[in-house]
Amino acid sequence: MTLPLGPDELLTTTRSVRKRLDLDRPVPLALVRESLEVAVQAPSGGNQQGWHWMVVTDPELRAGIGDYYRQSYLAYRDSPAYAGRAVPGREEVQARVASSADHLAEVMGRVPVHVIACITAAEELPASNQAGLWGSLLPAAWSFQVAARARGLGSAWTTLHLRYEREISALLGIPPQVRQGVLLPTAYYTGETFRPAKREPLDTVLHLDRW
Amino acid sequence: MTLPLGPDELLTTTRSVRKRLDLDRPVPLALVRESLEVAVQAPSGGNQQGWHWMVVTDPELRAGIGDYYRQSYLAYRDSPAYAGRAVPGREEVQARVASSADHLAEVMGRVPVHVIACITAAEELPASNQAGLWGSLLPAAWSFQVAARARGLGSAWTTLHLRYEREISALLGIPPQVRQGVLLPTAYYTGETFRPAKREPLDTVLHLDRW
Repeated sequence: MTLPLGPDELLTTTRSVRKRLDLDRPVPLALVRESLEVAVQAPSGGNQQGWHWMVVTDPELRAGIGDYYRQSYLAYRDSPAYAGRAVPGREEVQARVASSADHLAEVMGRVPVHVIACITAAEELPASNQAGLWGSLLPAAWSFQVAARARGLGSAWTTLHLRYEREISALLGIPPQVRQGVLLPTAYYTGETFRPAKREPLDTVLHLDRW
Repeated sequence: MTLPLGPDELLTTTRSVRKRLDLDRPVPLALVRESLEVAVQAPSGGNQQGWHWMVVTDPELRAGIGDYYRQSYLAYRDSPAYAGRAVPGREEVQARVASSADHLAEVMGRVPVHVIACITAAEELPASNQAGLWGSLLPAAWSFQVAARARGLGSAWTTLHLRYEREISALLGIPPQVRQGVLLPTAYYTGETFRPAKREPLDTVLHLDRW
């Protein structure tokens, strides 16, 4: 008898899957729907439920999104921000992430399902209101990833496509008053088991009462 | 024998708890730490792990945060945004949320634990980069809530305190290059069982291939 996944195991082993996405095995739409049913149970500010979920399986549309994503990724790789992200002592992990991100940029258009989490909001919302806005969408997007992982699906949290948000919105018919928050390429996981990733010790980022 | 919570049950029954927070029962710090250990396994952009977690239990500091929160809440209740949030057909749910939000604003300062999820980022980051920024923090904050709920703790996602972000940062010693993303008042849950909330049908917000 296989026991259901415990809460901690479930949450700690859901991680960005980039290299181990099965590009050839179709993903049943039912699994995506089930994961989204779970996702929309996440809370949203004032229970507004202002989210929209684009599920893209059409090969041409995915190829189009993939092209924009790769262009944006290559620009990012050449940018000062990319060079400046190096953290001393984390070179090895960062090199691994970079290699897996390279791979994802190459294959994005061929990942069987693209899920784009969107929310109704003005493009020019002030920066000071943005945390509240994204707090009404991104928890649900993370729930989608966790629910998908419980179904044997891997996915990755990507935002580089937002450099071409307008172009992708035009491609998919997303109206101008709707913002894209995250692109989640989703596929069957080809690894054996989902394992927790290494993290910095909690005490380096935990502050009790005062910073 | 009690089976562990299944993934879907866990994710669909973690919701904003405002009225059923036990204000009198102390929360062991170990449970908060365990939930944060789970939280930091969430992915972050480029695996930067740029988050910081303020855990506030000091009564005076909580009272101070609670005062700012209530002021901001009352201003919000008097604002056009509040009146404008009405959605036809959802009056009953919205009235319930409003009453429970009123309650939370009254008692915020007495909720035993305030967890504030923070991330290193410039205050003046352009709006176009904000989805990427918050995607590197908010999934972990939601994992915290889910892990806490698995331990019998309720919490609520609140951002109204951000109107006084600078004042609260000064109170807690949070440095100027660090942004607050969400305040999670956390306490033992006084309800009997966690139940899923009602949601709009998925098909009203799901778009296949094209909007």
